[in-house]
Amino acid sequence: MSVKVSVIMGSTSDWDTMKLACQVLEEYGIAYEKQVVSAHRTPDYMFEFAEQAQGRGVQVIIAGAGGAAHLPGMIAAKTILPVIGVPIKSRTLNGLDSLLSIVQMPGGVPVATVAIGEAGATNAGLLAAQILGTHDAQLQESLLMKRQERAKQVLEASDELF
Amino acid sequence: MSVKVSVIMGSTSDWDTMKLACQVLEEYGIAYEKQVVSAHRTPDYMFEFAEQAQGRGVQVIIAGAGGAAHLPGMIAAKTILPVIGVPIKSRTLNGLDSLLSIVQMPGGVPVATVAIGEAGATNAGLLAAQILGTHDAQLQESLLMKRQERAKQVLEASDELF
Amino acid sequence: MSVKVSVIMGSTSDWDTMKLACQVLEEYGIAYEKQVVSAHRTPDYMFEFAEQAQGRGVQVIIAGAGGAAHLPGMIAAKTILPVIGVPIKSRTLNGLDSLLSIVQMPGGVPVATVAIGEAGATNAGLLAAQILGTHDAQLQESLLMKRQERAKQVLEASDELF
Amino acid sequence: MSVKVSVIMGSTSDWDTMKLACQVLEEYGIAYEKQVVSAHRTPDYMFEFAEQAQGRGVQVIIAGAGGAAHLPGMIAAKTILPVIGVPIKSRTLNGLDSLLSIVQMPGGVPVATVAIGEAGATNAGLLAAQILGTHDAQLQESLLMKRQERAKQVLEASDELF
Amino acid sequence: MSVKVSVIMGSTSDWDTMKLACQVLEEYGIAYEKQVVSAHRTPDYMFEFAEQAQGRGVQVIIAGAGGAAHLPGMIAAKTILPVIGVPIKSRTLNGLDSLLSIVQMPGGVPVATVAIGEAGATNAGLLAAQILGTHDAQLQESLLMKRQERAKQVLEASDELF
Amino acid sequence: MSVKVSVIMGSTSDWDTMKLACQVLEEYGIAYEKQVVSAHRTPDYMFEFAEQAQGRGVQVIIAGAGGAAHLPGMIAAKTILPVIGVPIKSRTLNGLDSLLSIVQMPGGVPVATVAIGEAGATNAGLLAAQILGTHDAQLQESLLMKRQERAKQVLEASDELF
Amino acid sequence: MSVKVSVIMGSTSDWDTMKLACQVLEEYGIAYEKQVVSAHRTPDYMFEFAEQAQGRGVQVIIAGAGGAAHLPGMIAAKTILPVIGVPIKSRTLNGLDSLLSIVQMPGGVPVATVAIGEAGATNAGLLAAQILGTHDAQLQESLLMKRQERAKQVLEASDELF
Amino acid sequence: MSVKVSVIMGSTSDWDTMKLACQVLEEYGIAYEKQVVSAHRTPDYMFEFAEQAQGRGVQVIIAGAGGAAHLPGMIAAKTILPVIGVPIKSRTLNGLDSLLSIVQMPGGVPVATVAIGEAGATNAGLLAAQILGTHDAQLQESLLMKRQERAKQVLEASDELF
Repeated sequence: MSVKVSVIMGSTSDWDTMKLACQVLEEYGIAYEKQVVSAHRTPDYMFEFAEQAQGRGVQVIIAGAGGAAHLPGMIAAKTILPVIGVPIKSRTLNGLDSLLSIVQMPGGVPVATVAIGEAGATNAGLLAAQILGTHDAQLQESLLMKRQERAKQVLEASDELF
Repeated sequence: MSVKVSVIMGSTSDWDTMKLACQVLEEYGIAYEKQVVSAHRTPDYMFEFAEQAQGRGVQVIIAGAGGAAHLPGMIAAKTILPVIGVPIKSRTLNGLDSLLSIVQMPGGVPVATVAIGEAGATNAGLLAAQILGTHDAQLQESLLMKRQERAKQVLEASDELF
Repeated sequence: MSVKVSVIMGSTSDWDTMKLACQVLEEYGIAYEKQVVSAHRTPDYMFEFAEQAQGRGVQVIIAGAGGAAHLPGMIAAKTILPVIGVPIKSRTLNGLDSLLSIVQMPGGVPVATVAIGEAGATNAGLLAAQILGTHDAQLQESLLMKRQERAKQVLEASDELF
Repeated sequence: MSVKVSVIMGSTSDWDTMKLACQVLEEYGIAYEKQVVSAHRTPDYMFEFAEQAQGRGVQVIIAGAGGAAHLPGMIAAKTILPVIGVPIKSRTLNGLDSLLSIVQMPGGVPVATVAIGEAGATNAGLLAAQILGTHDAQLQESLLMKRQERAKQVLEASDELF
Repeated sequence: MSVKVSVIMGSTSDWDTMKLACQVLEEYGIAYEKQVVSAHRTPDYMFEFAEQAQGRGVQVIIAGAGGAAHLPGMIAAKTILPVIGVPIKSRTLNGLDSLLSIVQMPGGVPVATVAIGEAGATNAGLLAAQILGTHDAQLQESLLMKRQERAKQVLEASDELF
Repeated sequence: MSVKVSVIMGSTSDWDTMKLACQVLEEYGIAYEKQVVSAHRTPDYMFEFAEQAQGRGVQVIIAGAGGAAHLPGMIAAKTILPVIGVPIKSRTLNGLDSLLSIVQMPGGVPVATVAIGEAGATNAGLLAAQILGTHDAQLQESLLMKRQERAKQVLEASDELF
Repeated sequence: MSVKVSVIMGSTSDWDTMKLACQVLEEYGIAYEKQVVSAHRTPDYMFEFAEQAQGRGVQVIIAGAGGAAHLPGMIAAKTILPVIGVPIKSRTLNGLDSLLSIVQMPGGVPVATVAIGEAGATNAGLLAAQILGTHDAQLQESLLMKRQERAKQVLEASDELF
Repeated sequence: MSVKVSVIMGSTSDWDTMKLACQVLEEYGIAYEKQVVSAHRTPDYMFEFAEQAQGRGVQVIIAGAGGAAHLPGMIAAKTILPVIGVPIKSRTLNGLDSLLSIVQMPGGVPVATVAIGEAGATNAGLLAAQILGTHDAQLQESLLMKRQERAKQVLEASDELF
């Protein structure tokens, strides 16, 4: 089965966060790949990666980065595949710098930005599934079912707690 | 041709921003609809809209809202279609409130957030096209061509200016 | 005795904060209920809850939520009971996102917002008591007495410390 | 008819914002009074006002202030009536200072804070009506009807615009 | 020797910070008093304190408070003695709320604001000494000598470190 | 009459703000001087100024600056006179940069910081008067009287408005 | 005379700001070039530009960009020439997004960041001159002389104003 | 070999961060010196240092400081050597105050600002090397080689991780 989602991150230290995106993709049985691609330390490889992604059959790219987070936006500048950006929580500014560096893209080059940190990584995986789901009725069905399960769990957890 | 993208906004005053999303959709010949759906003033209609969107063949929803911007996130809570959120520039906090209210979603319910204001609205249209493009080779071709044109325009504008 | 205040929260993890609101209600002998109601994970139940609250005799709703905190505002959109919003301290942005998502409501749908975190939860309980007190002279009397006690405690604590 | 809501503000320049609260109270036929009470320039009068409000039959106090906005919190410290705080948009920091000065009250002294500026003033009026409504079935009925009207207006405005 | 500086704070928990102000006053042999005075929990005592300070011979007041920090500004509204405000580091917003609540006073009622937290408390003590020094040549001499000593210590510490 | 207060500012463009400090000093008949002293463009003159101020009989220094506002802090580093810092509203960040650059001084070198912009300049003048007043009973009397007048004006303005 | 400084900017609309950098370079007789190079719209050209700059004899690069400002950082990732980044004032967040996107670079790829907007552009030109000056005694002499002139102008302007 | 880079910092506690700049300089075999120079506690020595640096053959100055961080800007005001500013992470505001105090310099006196904290210190060392490299072909060669090594390491680390 060919890879449909590519999960990349600017540094090995981002893996703790980005693995949550991969867990979601696995949960839905979506073929994915993962690697470190650094906008600042491997710029040429980043461009090569971005140029080849579409040709390799990748349909959605998830890119996590922190601080002056340029990876999602630069990938988005080099491909017309949808790019999902995950702002990694940064040491000094708690990810506010990551968020603004990713979300405030100029008109012409969108990055689909999600929340800072772990919730964002989880949602990046889900958003990729939703995008693939626009042409995969079975995947949409799974998304709906999981959601109903989660609703049930919330109500049960409430009953248990109180 | 059935509607593929639904562009909604929390208030008529958001139209000045959100029309840029519609212009992009028109540019790419993507069938879309537009309407005001207010999370706070028409909550029942919002739910009805969100519940029916998938069944009506809508594939991507673009939702613009300002301030305590709940529309994109609540739509996302009620559908498993990809939802793109556009933070409208707000009067007092310049859209920082809109941005945080839209992007900081909890794990489980993603909103694909774009930049505050007009650049964001334009990119919402483009992101919708990119998502549809994952299964429409011709649309991807158009996206690539437009992008090459824009690159050329930038270089020409530079030559003209200097 | 029928329930007068309903304390809801977006997640079981909010309970650590929200229990302070409940402690205040108990201190004043106000009948209350508590449960998890998630705007994003149980949207239909949220609406059902909000629609029925007034009919069930609830007079004030206290809602705590964090991040893109939509629960208080969406409840407020579905009831004309006073809704008190408690911004939960969030992991990345310390509750600034929660605060702005709750307080910056558009004209027409108020949320009575209190401080981020534990002080806010305590004050949510007190504010509910004050609201009920507008038609309960005995409750107002208790509020006054507790306040005088606290003033005395502050002065004594100062004497002890120094 | 005795005054039920007292609308106070820190400066005559706040009137442009605070008059929106008064318009809402008039719309619902709620007897109110209005005056300038400055925490910093008329502190003794502020205390006198706060001490006498409950005895005069006032049931809810709405207080608007900007910058280092101490009026709502100090009134709240001197009465056990519910106090609604309206953060006025300030010249330098757009009301972020007003918001934090009003909302971040310590446990024990709640201020029901609404949005910065005009939306907040409107909602302060509405919140006062909702609080009074907890013991006035007719007022609750009016609140519900107005809300349904507004929902209808939103949908009609959407139809007109598009 | 009559008390020249009064060090007050909104809560016993502020003492950890405010004791640094007291240490400086002791270092310079300045007679001072210290106590907890809460704007929100002991408002009447706060006013009594502020009204009597000048008459009791107090020349400078140092007031520390956190969150919606009203103590320094309200004291300043009730006395024409110089009031120094120390923003206590708050749990959720790191003292940014305390800082803005203290420093953004309206024209007419100044608070001499220092840095957030411990550095601020130390400097509050020093600033009080500098103010008293404007009419106490010996105190000014001590201030100058201490400063020269500190400069020497900095240069020595540098030599030791490297 | 020898100069008691020195009003300095980093740039001629700060005069529009700083003149409000001078107006207050004139109102109270306090002898003052004013000049442009730039930390960054005239650093040597700044040090010369700071070194000589005390010897010339100056008792309080008011220093206004914007952006990376170093003037108040550097003056404070060179004199043990009380230094009042006025954060000038800056073009890009509205004076938040000015405020933090002035107020966040390290322990050992206090700057008495007032509000951003015009309110701050007015209060700088008043704070200087209050400091001088600690040893000038007549000045304290004037400060008290002005304050009572202002309280009266506020109450009258309220009566007129409503 | 070969070009020593290259002034680039992300968009033609940045020219209003960036021309101030060019004016400084002209003032010091430094050969420079200027062009629009967009990280997001002309990424390939950006890389080509960055790869060739050193070989063409360019010694310093000045890059201005706004919003999610990736140009300075990406140029820095592709050259070991010193890169000066100018954060352009953005429409929604006043350049705070530009600043954080430029300055918060990860270890390994520095960008010499200057102030937001016009002051920053002027200083970018000066910083380039200072860097070139490290090996050009005559240029250093000019820098010193200009600075002395400016100091004189400040003092004269002060005399004129007052 | 004469010292080419001077690394200074406002306090001994900054050494934990600033040593990273020194490590980079050592890595490239660049002669440097290091010392504590405090803008606020040793202002005269700071001026002496800044005045003599150029004459002593220093070509680049790296200055780290936190809070109201005046050291880099004041050094820059006293020399026409390039000054690199490192914002130290501060206890209360995480270095946002340090960053703004350093980067927002007025036109005429540039400070080359790098990221807050450790990444910034590392980059300060590298930027100094890049500046020296503009006239040292061998150093430029080393910078290029190190960069290629790091790119290789990133790709290898990715392979190892996954």
